[in-house]
Amino acid sequence: MTKMTIEALHAFMAEAFPQVSGDFTVEEVGDLRIRVRMNIEERHLRPGGTVSGPSIFALADVAIYLGLLAEIGPEALAVTTNCSIDFMRKPAAATDLVAEARLLKLGRVLAVGDVLIHSAGDPSPVARASLTYSIPPKR
Amino acid sequence: MTKMTIEALHAFMAEAFPQVSGDFTVEEVGDLRIRVRMNIEERHLRPGGTVSGPSIFALADVAIYLGLLAEIGPEALAVTTNCSIDFMRKPAAATDLVAEARLLKLGRVLAVGDVLIHSAGDPSPVARASLTYSIPPKR
Amino acid sequence: MTKMTIEALHAFMAEAFPQVSGDFTVEEVGDLRIRVRMNIEERHLRPGGTVSGPSIFALADVAIYLGLLAEIGPEALAVTTNCSIDFMRKPAAATDLVAEARLLKLGRVLAVGDVLIHSAGDPSPVARASLTYSIPPKR
Amino acid sequence: MTKMTIEALHAFMAEAFPQVSGDFTVEEVGDLRIRVRMNIEERHLRPGGTVSGPSIFALADVAIYLGLLAEIGPEALAVTTNCSIDFMRKPAAATDLVAEARLLKLGRVLAVGDVLIHSAGDPSPVARASLTYSIPPKR
Repeated sequence: MTKMTIEALHAFMAEAFPQVSGDFTVEEVGDLRIRVRMNIEERHLRPGGTVSGPSIFALADVAIYLGLLAEIGPEALAVTTNCSIDFMRKPAAATDLVAEARLLKLGRVLAVGDVLIHSAGDPSPVARASLTYSIPPKR
Repeated sequence: MTKMTIEALHAFMAEAFPQVSGDFTVEEVGDLRIRVRMNIEERHLRPGGTVSGPSIFALADVAIYLGLLAEIGPEALAVTTNCSIDFMRKPAAATDLVAEARLLKLGRVLAVGDVLIHSAGDPSPVARASLTYSIPPKR
Repeated sequence: MTKMTIEALHAFMAEAFPQVSGDFTVEEVGDLRIRVRMNIEERHLRPGGTVSGPSIFALADVAIYLGLLAEIGPEALAVTTNCSIDFMRKPAAATDLVAEARLLKLGRVLAVGDVLIHSAGDPSPVARASLTYSIPPKR
Repeated sequence: MTKMTIEALHAFMAEAFPQVSGDFTVEEVGDLRIRVRMNIEERHLRPGGTVSGPSIFALADVAIYLGLLAEIGPEALAVTTNCSIDFMRKPAAATDLVAEARLLKLGRVLAVGDVLIHSAGDPSPVARASLTYSIPPKR
């Protein structure tokens, strides 16, 4: 069982990141995996209805972050140190994105995860990303 | 000399990416290099005044994109295929960011560049990134 | 069905890359996936028996390359353009490594895959990597 | 001034990594920068005389590692946690490679550097790479 439930993750986001918490919905969490949906709004789009690169990056980042918090508890200070992202297909126009993330390493100071992102309703991956988080020492 | 001047790059951005063009100012361009400033607004910040990761990513992406356009002309369809980014220091609170980018490869189908980003007034790098762009065939 | 069988992949490697073909054994291929074993020898090790970083990189690179060839046929000229690799755990001393790779994109000019690498007999991932290959135009 | 001179770096390599120390020559070090030459031998080549990808990776890795050691002293346990590498041009056949590396961050637990690699006698970059090293706590 994870240390934080979906409800706890949503409550944490609303408190710690009020500007963006409405953009993301955790759909499933557990067993070092998490699925997060990005609720696509006009502001995430580029001309033609394509979801912007920074929005896709934001989803990858949030998915690993929440997957990590689910395991270690609410450490708002965990910070991204590296992200490598491949943009592979054009997302479907004006459609939510879904991130399937997994934690591959959960160390004392570093955590590593990777994520596949696809448009809701189409399993072909739009992007893949791997991210490293630095975990602050317990005080 | 580049194919596009600073004025031409600004005009292109305003036309092709009206939602975000106001966020970026090209300060210098030429010789496979470009300097782009991100005009930080409330919406780019996280609690505590830190510039968000997706905003830093957006700056890296735009800087290489505009550096590429300056060389090859306005190809709005050039697309990012890969980005690797390291977040190294906390940006100064509520301060503009400056990206110094250079093109390392300008091939027929792929372009590669890297970029160092720092807070205005402090040369210590906040982030570094390398990006690959796919260049569509001429029609 | 793939265009190349395990036997065909081994024959191709022995012909095209005689210096290293003995290091690798394809164990399974199909459905955009491949499993490749690295037969660890003294020359792959560092003091203490750890498999070296360049050897782990070589395995990741070969696994995606062979997975790609299996799909498109023997294009010896496909070249790696990008690799992002995370080293997550120390490999078991003097033990073969196993790479589980999958192709995520198989485009006209670019292919993208990722790979998890573990020591034989221990499923914990030692490394993960994602790679992009550039596919030369058909002549 | 750095904590280790070129001579000290060479002596450290010969002691800690006897299998590969002969492959590398430090040409210059200081001011968070280092230049390392890879002495290309038959075993680094692929058919046609091209330097292999794993060899280029090895040079990038060693250059940042030695640049880091020069600053912090001989910590043989510093380990690579991430590398992102772009292969941009074919190296000149059977020619030494030169890496120009710089440290961008030298933190308490993580160091980040990047490196440009070119064939000796031709300044066009063959590859660029960025690497993160984890620094073990002092005992």
